[in-house]
Amino acid sequence: MVNILAVNAGSSSLKFQLLQMPEEHVVAKGIIERIGLKEPVFSMKTNGKKVEFIEKITNHSEAVQLLLHHLIEQQAVTSLHDIDGIGHRVVHGGEEYSDSVLIDEEAIMAFERLSDLAPLHNPANITGIKEFQKALPNVPAVAIFDTAFHQTMPESSFLYSIPYDYYKKYGIRKYGFHGTSHKYVTGRAAALLNRPVEKIRLISCHLGNGASIAAIDGGRSIDTSMGFTPLAGVTMGTRSGNLDPALIPFLMEKTDKSAEEVLDILNKKSGMLGVSGFSSDLRDIEVEALKGNSRAQLALDVFASRIHKYIGSYAARMNGVDAIIFTAGIGENSDVIRSKVLAGLQFMGVYMDPDLNKIRGKEAFISFPHSPVKVMVIPTNEEVMIARDTVRLANIAHS
Amino acid sequence: MVNILAVNAGSSSLKFQLLQMPEEHVVAKGIIERIGLKEPVFSMKTNGKKVEFIEKITNHSEAVQLLLHHLIEQQAVTSLHDIDGIGHRVVHGGEEYSDSVLIDEEAIMAFERLSDLAPLHNPANITGIKEFQKALPNVPAVAIFDTAFHQTMPESSFLYSIPYDYYKKYGIRKYGFHGTSHKYVTGRAAALLNRPVEKIRLISCHLGNGASIAAIDGGRSIDTSMGFTPLAGVTMGTRSGNLDPALIPFLMEKTDKSAEEVLDILNKKSGMLGVSGFSSDLRDIEVEALKGNSRAQLALDVFASRIHKYIGSYAARMNGVDAIIFTAGIGENSDVIRSKVLAGLQFMGVYMDPDLNKIRGKEAFISFPHSPVKVMVIPTNEEVMIARDTVRLANIAHS
Repeated sequence: MVNILAVNAGSSSLKFQLLQMPEEHVVAKGIIERIGLKEPVFSMKTNGKKVEFIEKITNHSEAVQLLLHHLIEQQAVTSLHDIDGIGHRVVHGGEEYSDSVLIDEEAIMAFERLSDLAPLHNPANITGIKEFQKALPNVPAVAIFDTAFHQTMPESSFLYSIPYDYYKKYGIRKYGFHGTSHKYVTGRAAALLNRPVEKIRLISCHLGNGASIAAIDGGRSIDTSMGFTPLAGVTMGTRSGNLDPALIPFLMEKTDKSAEEVLDILNKKSGMLGVSGFSSDLRDIEVEALKGNSRAQLALDVFASRIHKYIGSYAARMNGVDAIIFTAGIGENSDVIRSKVLAGLQFMGVYMDPDLNKIRGKEAFISFPHSPVKVMVIPTNEEVMIARDTVRLANIAHS
Repeated sequence: MVNILAVNAGSSSLKFQLLQMPEEHVVAKGIIERIGLKEPVFSMKTNGKKVEFIEKITNHSEAVQLLLHHLIEQQAVTSLHDIDGIGHRVVHGGEEYSDSVLIDEEAIMAFERLSDLAPLHNPANITGIKEFQKALPNVPAVAIFDTAFHQTMPESSFLYSIPYDYYKKYGIRKYGFHGTSHKYVTGRAAALLNRPVEKIRLISCHLGNGASIAAIDGGRSIDTSMGFTPLAGVTMGTRSGNLDPALIPFLMEKTDKSAEEVLDILNKKSGMLGVSGFSSDLRDIEVEALKGNSRAQLALDVFASRIHKYIGSYAARMNGVDAIIFTAGIGENSDVIRSKVLAGLQFMGVYMDPDLNKIRGKEAFISFPHSPVKVMVIPTNEEVMIARDTVRLANIAHS
């Protein structure tokens, strides 16, 4: 039995889970928010007990110290020696990483080079890695990438139709994200279908505040909706998804904004927030739609129709599909969205059972038994994937 | 019997066809190119005879005079009184026009307002209209829009996931183009299938140097791949089609170019030209691919896979499809592309016959007789649509 700390460091936050492996039992989980801002919040759940308090946390170094202190204080571990490995989420692994990797100095230099492709994410991830290195220098650490699972995409999927030089010079191509989640649900789907993963064609719909769809053929991602960045693909909470590229110069001219300012709007003020005009949160939008708010209804229609069309295109990519998976916040919990997304896919063998579809947040089939294409709800679990890869790559023996 | 002149005025060109209606017989056709540039060329075919020469043509006014002169000179008409109506292609009809329209002063003002949405096209179209008005003031003229056929799209298809205000204030939405072509082949498909158009679901693939796909349900366009501008959608000869919007600011920074310069690259140096690195012309690319050029092969794969995926998504949009249509230069002539696009769509009932697929430029079924989804090659004819609408809207009686 070993303890693995799964870490997701953002620019002003630190999410963590302490997992006992190989049992995959969650010993502690929590988040430190507003690091370096006013009123930072530490919250953690251990042994069914929750602690939450405001404390001055100036930087990630202090956040790590605080976390380690409270892991002992709340008896998640007896001493820091009980932490056997640390797994770090790193957003961008570029073309270098098609699997997780044991972190050494060379790896950190590679992550820094890749920051060019993910300037909002990789630097924070690297800060997290370095602070834990300082605090626990003898504990092996592993990086798990959002992009790695999609490195199996063929060139015809990942290449944009722009001058080829831009791919070679600047690394401009489709990378895809949410790979850890898509990979986790792929494994669960094969287990639930009781079929070898090599023999199944899956479409995975990771629908949270960020959303992406992946076509997974024989366990390998062959296409995905996010692109060079997580802005592309389907409509999301605040992100636009795909657009006519000509809109950006047009909007710059009309609104007298810079390219960065327009991009900021496409990332933060668009998606369901932009269409509905009042919220990026699907739950709010569903409530308002029920009350007859037509813009809320429109946001649901736009969101669902984009996902619906991706399912059609990815079925075409694989000459059919064996199972469709819904995961992440919306995918696991919204029967409204699942029902709208799946309506009118009978032509390709998808028959959803409206009663089974009422499920929330639990593994379940929601298609009729006679449906040639199975539809499943599978709660995602990126932390367990991080912990598994940490054990595997740090070569940590279960004692 | 009446004579209708179908006109397509570009910024430095004037394409024309003189059609005898209702027979739809082409009396004369031709093009004036390089207007206002050095060595303008006039070419026209009448009664099986072709004339072509270089002549100084300073502006559209001179081009129109030259055209009318040669229509008489080459005995296409006896006098200008024999021209009963003129139909003008106008690229952008915005939300104002869901059908063609008889041109009056008010209409021209509307087209000018719409130039904001099509700054490269509408002004040239309007110049053409005005010059013919001067030359033939008593001949009724009708405008036929590239966008009109797509005005039946529901809001969930045409709305982008950006702040809703941008739609209301600036008219930013999906308009779609090639509408005249998609409408023409829709009519032909219904005739060839011998079924009422109201009862069929079609996917129309207009594949030329520009390319767009349309989902046509019961004769009405409900979705299409081009967007706010003709840059969006699938890979084209030199256009990128859909991209991660974040690429534009990234490219601006990396290449130190303005938004307009990047947009110019996406319009003129991208698509199959960008991927192959040597040509935007599919025929060149097919030749090189056969010789083993891997970048040429990649360009074919990228182009075909984008269309393939649109077919899947539009089948999903309509819960299946009854027939798939290929039209325009590539669609009518390239068995290679048709075969690649259609490969792996058996799951939705598409079975192409490789022998029938050898057809070029003629109306034909290319699916096996037992294929639940029919596949057709239908040469497009935008000029005949222009002539028909001109007769209908100018209320020209056949004498």
